[in-house]
Amino acid sequence: MAGNTFGQAFRITTFGESHGRAIGLILDGCPAGLPIDEEYIQAELQRRRPGQSSIVTQRKEADRMEILSGVFDGKATGTPIAMVIFNADARSRDYGHIADKFRPSHADFTYHAKYGLRDYRGGGRSSARETAARVAAGAIAKLLLRQSGIDIRAFVSQVGHLSLEAPYASLDLSMVESNPVRCPDPAMAKEMESLIREVRKAGDTIGGVVSCVISGCPPGLGDPVFDKLHANLGRAMLSINACKGFEYGSGFEGVKMRGSQHNDHFYMDGDKVRTDTNHSGGIQGGISNGMDIYFRLAFKPVATIVAPQESVNEAGESVVVEGKGRHDPCVVPRAVPIVEAMAALVLADHLLLQRLVKL
Amino acid sequence: MAGNTFGQAFRITTFGESHGRAIGLILDGCPAGLPIDEEYIQAELQRRRPGQSSIVTQRKEADRMEILSGVFDGKATGTPIAMVIFNADARSRDYGHIADKFRPSHADFTYHAKYGLRDYRGGGRSSARETAARVAAGAIAKLLLRQSGIDIRAFVSQVGHLSLEAPYASLDLSMVESNPVRCPDPAMAKEMESLIREVRKAGDTIGGVVSCVISGCPPGLGDPVFDKLHANLGRAMLSINACKGFEYGSGFEGVKMRGSQHNDHFYMDGDKVRTDTNHSGGIQGGISNGMDIYFRLAFKPVATIVAPQESVNEAGESVVVEGKGRHDPCVVPRAVPIVEAMAALVLADHLLLQRLVKL
Amino acid sequence: MAGNTFGQAFRITTFGESHGRAIGLILDGCPAGLPIDEEYIQAELQRRRPGQSSIVTQRKEADRMEILSGVFDGKATGTPIAMVIFNADARSRDYGHIADKFRPSHADFTYHAKYGLRDYRGGGRSSARETAARVAAGAIAKLLLRQSGIDIRAFVSQVGHLSLEAPYASLDLSMVESNPVRCPDPAMAKEMESLIREVRKAGDTIGGVVSCVISGCPPGLGDPVFDKLHANLGRAMLSINACKGFEYGSGFEGVKMRGSQHNDHFYMDGDKVRTDTNHSGGIQGGISNGMDIYFRLAFKPVATIVAPQESVNEAGESVVVEGKGRHDPCVVPRAVPIVEAMAALVLADHLLLQRLVKL
Amino acid sequence: MAGNTFGQAFRITTFGESHGRAIGLILDGCPAGLPIDEEYIQAELQRRRPGQSSIVTQRKEADRMEILSGVFDGKATGTPIAMVIFNADARSRDYGHIADKFRPSHADFTYHAKYGLRDYRGGGRSSARETAARVAAGAIAKLLLRQSGIDIRAFVSQVGHLSLEAPYASLDLSMVESNPVRCPDPAMAKEMESLIREVRKAGDTIGGVVSCVISGCPPGLGDPVFDKLHANLGRAMLSINACKGFEYGSGFEGVKMRGSQHNDHFYMDGDKVRTDTNHSGGIQGGISNGMDIYFRLAFKPVATIVAPQESVNEAGESVVVEGKGRHDPCVVPRAVPIVEAMAALVLADHLLLQRLVKL
Repeated sequence: MAGNTFGQAFRITTFGESHGRAIGLILDGCPAGLPIDEEYIQAELQRRRPGQSSIVTQRKEADRMEILSGVFDGKATGTPIAMVIFNADARSRDYGHIADKFRPSHADFTYHAKYGLRDYRGGGRSSARETAARVAAGAIAKLLLRQSGIDIRAFVSQVGHLSLEAPYASLDLSMVESNPVRCPDPAMAKEMESLIREVRKAGDTIGGVVSCVISGCPPGLGDPVFDKLHANLGRAMLSINACKGFEYGSGFEGVKMRGSQHNDHFYMDGDKVRTDTNHSGGIQGGISNGMDIYFRLAFKPVATIVAPQESVNEAGESVVVEGKGRHDPCVVPRAVPIVEAMAALVLADHLLLQRLVKL
Repeated sequence: MAGNTFGQAFRITTFGESHGRAIGLILDGCPAGLPIDEEYIQAELQRRRPGQSSIVTQRKEADRMEILSGVFDGKATGTPIAMVIFNADARSRDYGHIADKFRPSHADFTYHAKYGLRDYRGGGRSSARETAARVAAGAIAKLLLRQSGIDIRAFVSQVGHLSLEAPYASLDLSMVESNPVRCPDPAMAKEMESLIREVRKAGDTIGGVVSCVISGCPPGLGDPVFDKLHANLGRAMLSINACKGFEYGSGFEGVKMRGSQHNDHFYMDGDKVRTDTNHSGGIQGGISNGMDIYFRLAFKPVATIVAPQESVNEAGESVVVEGKGRHDPCVVPRAVPIVEAMAALVLADHLLLQRLVKL
Repeated sequence: MAGNTFGQAFRITTFGESHGRAIGLILDGCPAGLPIDEEYIQAELQRRRPGQSSIVTQRKEADRMEILSGVFDGKATGTPIAMVIFNADARSRDYGHIADKFRPSHADFTYHAKYGLRDYRGGGRSSARETAARVAAGAIAKLLLRQSGIDIRAFVSQVGHLSLEAPYASLDLSMVESNPVRCPDPAMAKEMESLIREVRKAGDTIGGVVSCVISGCPPGLGDPVFDKLHANLGRAMLSINACKGFEYGSGFEGVKMRGSQHNDHFYMDGDKVRTDTNHSGGIQGGISNGMDIYFRLAFKPVATIVAPQESVNEAGESVVVEGKGRHDPCVVPRAVPIVEAMAALVLADHLLLQRLVKL
Repeated sequence: MAGNTFGQAFRITTFGESHGRAIGLILDGCPAGLPIDEEYIQAELQRRRPGQSSIVTQRKEADRMEILSGVFDGKATGTPIAMVIFNADARSRDYGHIADKFRPSHADFTYHAKYGLRDYRGGGRSSARETAARVAAGAIAKLLLRQSGIDIRAFVSQVGHLSLEAPYASLDLSMVESNPVRCPDPAMAKEMESLIREVRKAGDTIGGVVSCVISGCPPGLGDPVFDKLHANLGRAMLSINACKGFEYGSGFEGVKMRGSQHNDHFYMDGDKVRTDTNHSGGIQGGISNGMDIYFRLAFKPVATIVAPQESVNEAGESVVVEGKGRHDPCVVPRAVPIVEAMAALVLADHLLLQRLVKL
């Protein structure tokens, strides 16, 4: 019932279809007094925008965001902040040919099964276009987190078989925005870019991995039991289109370790409690421990490809689906700001919720 | 704020500390008329119970569950079902020696940071004992799902480096309960059991992987955007103690594939829409498509080990933590019923929510 | 935390300030397939609109509503329906003179105390302009309820001391829209209209009562304990600006009765269970019993008056507040469609929730 | 879906039937560190307990409350506090004769319509016995509020036609507990007591009014729009069994006033903003303004009477219902602590929520 709502104290509700009139959101719970830097929000949207480089979809959307409420004299008033992005590049004629067809590995069939009808234009609500609303809200969350010294950085760590094996601490994350792939290792970035171009030329797509590091998070965020910090981060990330897996800290590799190797030992660093290693990924018992939080996300190859594919339609007849429209050969470069936005929404929520906990 | 509550339509709120008076839960939203088979609930609890075999913790808990409300003449009345398990084996004297110490990779420090005080006995609320409440509620969810033909089976697919590589469809899942490891391949189960014994003898612990398969799920479950079925499954699983990663369908391996390989093609099987492959893991656009749902979970090695470890205490002094208490050398065998229970809670919730969707 | 959200299964989140860019809402949970009649929604907005008659505020707002999402080919798709009304008649210069003053019995001081800052133009978020969003959402709720034969009618039953004493069943509710006061008794309507004109001429305002009758409601709606149907109706009504009281069925008068007089006796009317009297107001134990639901609401006199009033400002200095702006001499005529809208939202929510209850 | 849950930040979920095994609740969100005075909780329960005086029901229940979790060394730990009261006086044989009958103005028929089955013993979940859980949780809320200087006092202001007309400020509220009626005016209390005895002798019941005053509430509590402080108070009060109406501040009488009479003017009292009159009832725009909050509640006459009444049964046959069991001739004396408890739950919730609002 809250399918389009995310967060508790810092809560967004999003709306909009790919080729409808507009997409947008209402953010409820932004603390009064927070300076709202509209240029920053727009800049974050540019990082997600189609057409930003030659390795992403060339769909034309300016993604111009308008704030409709909740901000007065440049500051949040504590009332709901509504934001809207009108859809410019509708071109709904592109989609008539698939109106009743179920595209393989898209959400066409499942929406049909769930609702009995659907807006088939460009995937409708299932389009990743919806994530622009998340990025806009996430930008405000980042502004809030910045005031507490919390910094979130995501980057591409794998495209297809090309994987950055070095631990994140050895990477220069300031390089992420220096290349269109958003990989902090320039040499690897070049290889990844070549692979993506090659895949695109073949009319195909490829998957990848996005890694994310949150630094400056104070100890105490996260709610034990069902709202563990990593459980909420996991849900947030898995809710991003095409995401197939989430692991934090030692993740799947850690299962091979012994407890005696895996345990992180506490020591004092001045008046701060720290751990010598960080297999815990900055979270213990579902609560942040003050160390870096880090996690990795698997993204599948985009389902839209050029080659014709066999499928069925609403009437249960065999059909051939042909690839049209403009799409990404690999989603991970554009997923980076979305991952950061979702992480920011989770952290902002828990940062506020922590105020409720102690007397 | 809802840290101890899970689900929307089929909603549980749990309570209780490891060495407190009792643990338990309130289940709100169980449809009126559902026959409540108390023996089945108790049997599910036995699968999670300490002391069930020689490779799990020998802590003595009968885990006798009592229903306090919401059931009349053997049927759910639609009012809240409260269930309680009184703690038998309290032995709180075991824990005085760690009252102010932060055990490495436990939740001691983070609880202290979050709340300023804590019930240190046996991990208090952070103990996996809390999951007994989930299993009890999950058993009722399973009873509900059974009426719709939905079946959930989890099993151990990896312990340390020992990994079952075969696809789940080639395994005989009826064998899961035939051995204490809960691995459906008897030969591999033996190896895993030996490894666990060896690790325990060394006073150490080891991680593992639990896999889960949900069959019989109708198309249409799951809410697009933030409550995607796999996002809610992921959150549910990551909320289980020691879980470090979640992947569904093709997961992390799938990132290496091309879209042309990864896409699942639809075809008709009688009047049912099915896919030829199932890299989607039974979920597309966050909504079930009627195929098997499957996913894998990483569990870290248990933090409690026998060897002394360096740490700090609440006063910021260096201390040595020595392993006492009874613990599991490897959590995955006992995690199997917990994984099933959490999956059942997610499915039951979405099964009910789907009633709200169409006119 | 959900201060701007109402409802569970049929859930709205509203936004917007009186003199901001726009007001609007997102409706999440409208069942897929519901025909959305935009003209009907607009017609309902006309009933609430300023300037509709000479006894209401002359502020000029066309209240032109636009649907941004969630409707395709005239039907709800099951995804969020976003609706927006751009503010036409901003005139924020009207409000500079009260920027730092606390108008008596307005929300200026309390918003300042709560948030530390506020949009002072026209009351900002506290303006009754926000109720336009409720009316738009309520219109969709009415379209849903109509399919189940549920009909909601509100009317003015008191203005100042002029009170309609006859039981609602003796009134001809089809006459409500025949006069600007929205009182179903034409003679009384005339008297009320005169009183309102007289009050307005004096630069003053006056209170009133709105009554509401819901017919055709099936038995079984409402959740016992905290979400009793009348408790949720009460909260809904009390959330309307200027509402000071709510009573249903026998209400405050009923306290004087004996149980032997007050009890409604059941009898069979064909295969329907009915009651001979209806002091219960159609709700027993918080659940509808199939009889008419009826309730009454007290509205205080509007706080904006022409005469100068003593007050203080943000600096704690004594100031005089002078009445400017355009306002209603009596809110009840325009409150009628708002009351109906809120009732419709509550009923639609419970109608959907009832689907979850039985197996 | 949250029918048995109340509150957001300070949230309770209750369970239990009148003649089931136990009633109780889970309180989630009590701030860590709050001293939990169990004797105080028990004392509050005594105020609600059956058999406390000769003018209330003589049903025998000790109402002995046990805390099962969430409290350690006398303080709240921040984890859920579960409380349970086992039912002593079950006597379910009393109720066999009404198993399939619908008692007039009880919830028998509506539960049957809603759920299709019900626990008919003593009203099951619809029994006012459930309110003991509210009183227990409300006692903890009061302990929290006391730390902020917030005081809540309810009292009986009307029984049948006997009404205390004096404004609350002229009453000595310290006298409330000095008589079994809980009316602060001793002379009126005597009259009310006589009336209740007379009614009881006649085998009948009578209604009444409870008034409540909250002092010491800081400005800024309450959420504008849907969670206005008085809207949440109203919902809370209307959720109490037998409550038929709620009004705050000037209430229904205020509708007769002009704005020029009704407006409360601000002035400075030292550094505090205060109002000269308090028709607003301490709440403006849904937010507390620092003045006393006061409201009144109508309670209908109890439905259980001695005289036989005509009704129908589940089979649709005419039946006669005869009064048995032990019941209250007038609920208001025992409603007083329940009203205070619900008010405390609302205030505690909003007190915590206010922490989220400002930067």
